[in-house]
Amino acid sequence: MAGMYELLETVVTPTDLHKFSDKELRQVADEVRQAILDNVSKTGGHLSSNLGTVELTVAMYAAYSIPPDKVVWDTGHQAYPHKLLTGRLNRFETLRKHGGLNGFLRRDEHPLDYFGAGHAGTAISAALGFAAARDRLGTKEKVVAVTGDAAIASGMSWEALFHAGELQTDLCVVLNDNRMSIAPNVGALHNYLVKLRSRPDFQGLARTAKRVIERIPGPAPRIAAGLRHGITHYLAPEDTGTIFEEIGFEYIGAVDGHDMPTLLDVFRKVRELDYPVFVHALTVKGKGYEVAEDDSRKWHGVTPFDVSSCELPKKAGAPAYTQVFGEAMVELGHEDEKVVAITAAMPDGTGLTAFSREFPERYYDTGIAEQHAVTFAAGLAAGGLKPFCAIYSTFLQRGFDQVLHDVALQNLPVRFVMDRAGLVGDDGPTHHGVFDIAYLTMMPNMTLVAPRDATELREMLRYMASFEGGPIALRYPRGTAEDVLPEARTPISHGSAEVLGSPSGQRPLTTTASSSEPGDRPTRALVETVSKAGGSRVLIVAVGTLVSEAWRAALRLETEGLEVVVVNARFVKPIDEDTILALAHEADLVVTAEEGQHTGGFGQQVRDLLARAGLSQTPLEIVAIGDHFVEHGAQPIIRAANGLDADSIVARIVAKVRQRLTKAV
Amino acid sequence: MAGMYELLETVVTPTDLHKFSDKELRQVADEVRQAILDNVSKTGGHLSSNLGTVELTVAMYAAYSIPPDKVVWDTGHQAYPHKLLTGRLNRFETLRKHGGLNGFLRRDEHPLDYFGAGHAGTAISAALGFAAARDRLGTKEKVVAVTGDAAIASGMSWEALFHAGELQTDLCVVLNDNRMSIAPNVGALHNYLVKLRSRPDFQGLARTAKRVIERIPGPAPRIAAGLRHGITHYLAPEDTGTIFEEIGFEYIGAVDGHDMPTLLDVFRKVRELDYPVFVHALTVKGKGYEVAEDDSRKWHGVTPFDVSSCELPKKAGAPAYTQVFGEAMVELGHEDEKVVAITAAMPDGTGLTAFSREFPERYYDTGIAEQHAVTFAAGLAAGGLKPFCAIYSTFLQRGFDQVLHDVALQNLPVRFVMDRAGLVGDDGPTHHGVFDIAYLTMMPNMTLVAPRDATELREMLRYMASFEGGPIALRYPRGTAEDVLPEARTPISHGSAEVLGSPSGQRPLTTTASSSEPGDRPTRALVETVSKAGGSRVLIVAVGTLVSEAWRAALRLETEGLEVVVVNARFVKPIDEDTILALAHEADLVVTAEEGQHTGGFGQQVRDLLARAGLSQTPLEIVAIGDHFVEHGAQPIIRAANGLDADSIVARIVAKVRQRLTKAV
Repeated sequence: MAGMYELLETVVTPTDLHKFSDKELRQVADEVRQAILDNVSKTGGHLSSNLGTVELTVAMYAAYSIPPDKVVWDTGHQAYPHKLLTGRLNRFETLRKHGGLNGFLRRDEHPLDYFGAGHAGTAISAALGFAAARDRLGTKEKVVAVTGDAAIASGMSWEALFHAGELQTDLCVVLNDNRMSIAPNVGALHNYLVKLRSRPDFQGLARTAKRVIERIPGPAPRIAAGLRHGITHYLAPEDTGTIFEEIGFEYIGAVDGHDMPTLLDVFRKVRELDYPVFVHALTVKGKGYEVAEDDSRKWHGVTPFDVSSCELPKKAGAPAYTQVFGEAMVELGHEDEKVVAITAAMPDGTGLTAFSREFPERYYDTGIAEQHAVTFAAGLAAGGLKPFCAIYSTFLQRGFDQVLHDVALQNLPVRFVMDRAGLVGDDGPTHHGVFDIAYLTMMPNMTLVAPRDATELREMLRYMASFEGGPIALRYPRGTAEDVLPEARTPISHGSAEVLGSPSGQRPLTTTASSSEPGDRPTRALVETVSKAGGSRVLIVAVGTLVSEAWRAALRLETEGLEVVVVNARFVKPIDEDTILALAHEADLVVTAEEGQHTGGFGQQVRDLLARAGLSQTPLEIVAIGDHFVEHGAQPIIRAANGLDADSIVARIVAKVRQRLTKAV
Repeated sequence: MAGMYELLETVVTPTDLHKFSDKELRQVADEVRQAILDNVSKTGGHLSSNLGTVELTVAMYAAYSIPPDKVVWDTGHQAYPHKLLTGRLNRFETLRKHGGLNGFLRRDEHPLDYFGAGHAGTAISAALGFAAARDRLGTKEKVVAVTGDAAIASGMSWEALFHAGELQTDLCVVLNDNRMSIAPNVGALHNYLVKLRSRPDFQGLARTAKRVIERIPGPAPRIAAGLRHGITHYLAPEDTGTIFEEIGFEYIGAVDGHDMPTLLDVFRKVRELDYPVFVHALTVKGKGYEVAEDDSRKWHGVTPFDVSSCELPKKAGAPAYTQVFGEAMVELGHEDEKVVAITAAMPDGTGLTAFSREFPERYYDTGIAEQHAVTFAAGLAAGGLKPFCAIYSTFLQRGFDQVLHDVALQNLPVRFVMDRAGLVGDDGPTHHGVFDIAYLTMMPNMTLVAPRDATELREMLRYMASFEGGPIALRYPRGTAEDVLPEARTPISHGSAEVLGSPSGQRPLTTTASSSEPGDRPTRALVETVSKAGGSRVLIVAVGTLVSEAWRAALRLETEGLEVVVVNARFVKPIDEDTILALAHEADLVVTAEEGQHTGGFGQQVRDLLARAGLSQTPLEIVAIGDHFVEHGAQPIIRAANGLDADSIVARIVAKVRQRLTKAV
């Protein structure tokens, strides 16, 4: 790779950019773009959003002095250029790999990652905090927040804009407006931005840029109101002021976000201002890679691909849960015209695209506005419809209070469908959906279900459509939906678990290679001990994804002489107390398994149940995630690292049984 | 009361208003105002906000047909007129009493309470949901959302406005702009509303109202864009459009919210429109009760008072926790200039008013914007300050994702101070702060503390100022901060509980009457049983508020022959494992006590601890709130009803000990 990035390789920290001429900065931008293409095509990751911020980042970082100046990026998936300009070119090939660079910014990855973010809309709040801290501490650095046209529609962005407009401190907000975030933007704000973009004055901006810049007043004395209006009126003579001006910002825009000379002029001038400035930059997602420009949605988050052929690899194998959900929703839509669907800017990610095409008038995309999406769904339910509110587990955290205060308290039958529940893999700790079990089961009136496979997902969705007793949520993981378990199924019944029984008494449809591997030496020793002691009976109650892991574990444990019964919890809440207690009475060891946090999780509720039923002597092992955030990495790697896979479950049970038998002997 | 409200008494449902002349409607409004004064002066409650919405409500309800038309109120504390116009005059004297009318709207209290709310900012989302459901179901009713000038600054209000502007369905949003919500409004949006209010065109609006109304176009055909602008330009010739117009609403305002003829004209006309309309009404908090008009902040939420003398009763007795916190913050501010304070529209409620006067430049009121407040605090912490973010427990739910994703994940030392943790009393289920233990302890990196009394609150705040290891939250209750326990104190040490010991070995400073009452007959029988069995040792680990209840319980239990050791947990997380396990080893019964939900609460973490330490045989009783929402009522009543007071703890322990001894004998 040596020599491929002639100038970029010499940039260890952004102030190194100061040594380059404007012409050389253009070359740096080209090298940054090339580095993104070269690496993301190998590692996978967010492609089109980062191709869109190349010039914006290079120009901004050349104009500012970082450090001490600070740039806060909203949702780090537009910040690969930032990573490349802060000395991480050499490690870029480790992007999103376990132990490698994170796909988002992280304070503990680099000192110039001032504020990490995987959820949208946080940058202006955080940057305003930095600015206020600077004002208190009497330092002089500049603070910039870079947000996107999707993120700025989130409520918290507006809370922050209103506060910044009031504080009137030195802060620059850059709107990276690529006219389409993950999905096409929706909402009236988007229409308004379109209006700003299309004003005649901004056509051919490059030509007039020089004149525009010259008219931006200097930092001191503080500009008079009249003069200030003069500037924006130069750009927008027909308007009194944009929304951003009305709430206290200087508005500069729209600026061509790929025109290096204009960007350099704008940022060098803006850096001299000491009050709230709003820079509206127009960028193109996928810029410089033609196929990604043409279909930026397809090229938003990519798997490794061949740059020259411009082809993304076809997905193979079992369908993803997302796809199963999408198909099931279309079926439900046909069966029941009261079924409506809501998403918060994730029609593709949640699989609702098909539903939106089939039933456009029954489909609502609120944009990145989970709070509103939840309470809007509550209104739809109170109004007599059957809303399915599809939001990733991690993003539903944004609507926590709305789920609790508007839905659960009023016991409204909103159906929540949480994709990406459990460990999501490469996106890492900002995206793992590992808290929903704890934060939903603590809510009175809430029902929470988790399917063990694709077939059960379909059945549960049908059950949810018919369930009017209150709010009900369903969690399913990122990934393929395989059917590995016994085919015989009992119908979904409220609060009832499914007893899968013992592998020896049931034949699974398929088994994976790992499940038929021979046991290791210690478990062979165990066989003898167990048989001497007259056997040991293990009950595993597993939630969702981990049912198949539990089944695989059971297959292996049976070969070691243990009797194992596997239960698919189905209902995380309400727990099937009768079934679990009846089976626990017969067990020497009870194990729960869930892909979520231990604290407040399903296992703790089972422990509580056993204690209340006088079974606290029965040993209980809780397989769940400990009290820490989980790093990024491929799902199998981090699942194993957190003790959630079949091998870990086997090892855990073997250790526990041996401990018990040792005591007994 | 017969005859006092001549016309109002005949109003059982809002459509009854249709029978009155406009002149009689004026009288209805006067009677509504009188009924509010007469009743709230006896029951206590929200006074000034409801005096401000009298004419607005009467005019709106007379102009619309409710049912089937729907009005959704944002934060029910401005909706007493609504209650009085929907047949609840007779029951109004039960307001906020246990078993009586709720202080907010509730779907299960009345069919015309279409959507309940105690948290601000939800009305537009919910109303848009009702409107969308109407459009799907093909019914024709009108939908109105009434929001306030504080609530509309919340992010979710803007998410909803953007969505409503896009959907372009039949929806009216009424802004009840009383220029000051609970506290004076802050933020740039507020400044913008001031600008709208002060436009010359709106001076003497009453005179021109007729002409304004005449120019609002009829419902069909859909108005042309040009004509539409014509209307607003009549009101605002110098502007292209207000923010509300820019995002898709017809803007009508500002309207005098106490001028009945104008309001009737406006609402009768607006009801005929079938697209998004924004009515900006100016009201006066406390309208018609002079002292409340003059100091609406003081008269916002009141205790019973004498209407004629215009005096609120003086507060007596021990200082409230809020006051102790406020004083301590001023001290900390003087000691450490890095200490800054953030509140979200609650300077009085959280006790930060004194700090804001002493250190105006270190004090931030974000308005009702908890999401931003939390991430802004994260930015302040990352920028090197010591932010204390003071938000009621129930309202911090709005910032749940920000606490998790921006603060805990990045391990930033933000200090959260949650007033109103536990059962708040009369405000009821929308306001009880009973979920914070569960939703904060599930977050990795989080520390959560709870003081047992006023002195410990001060000590813990000082500890928090010095603690830089990560986020730390403190919960304290609504109410007086009494010091009833042993005076000897150990210093606060991270993760360490305070062993208070047994009442017989320690003398509390004071004891309440109830604690020295003789035991009842069943416990006398218990004395004999216990003494026969050689005693029974009980360990009570209590959190915050319940430490004093546990101490009172211990005093009584000792007289019954039990040995009781009381531990003040201090740290809800991390739990003091060593201390609790050491004492649990010596105990025959362990009891935990917390004013919060059982599910995911402190007790379950102690259960987990005992099990992991091999002490699962030791019986554990968890005193906490069951899996239900808690109704409103005076704190002692609902505390007892939920088994959280000393008497309940005694009864619970006695029953358990008897059960154990019966088995043993």
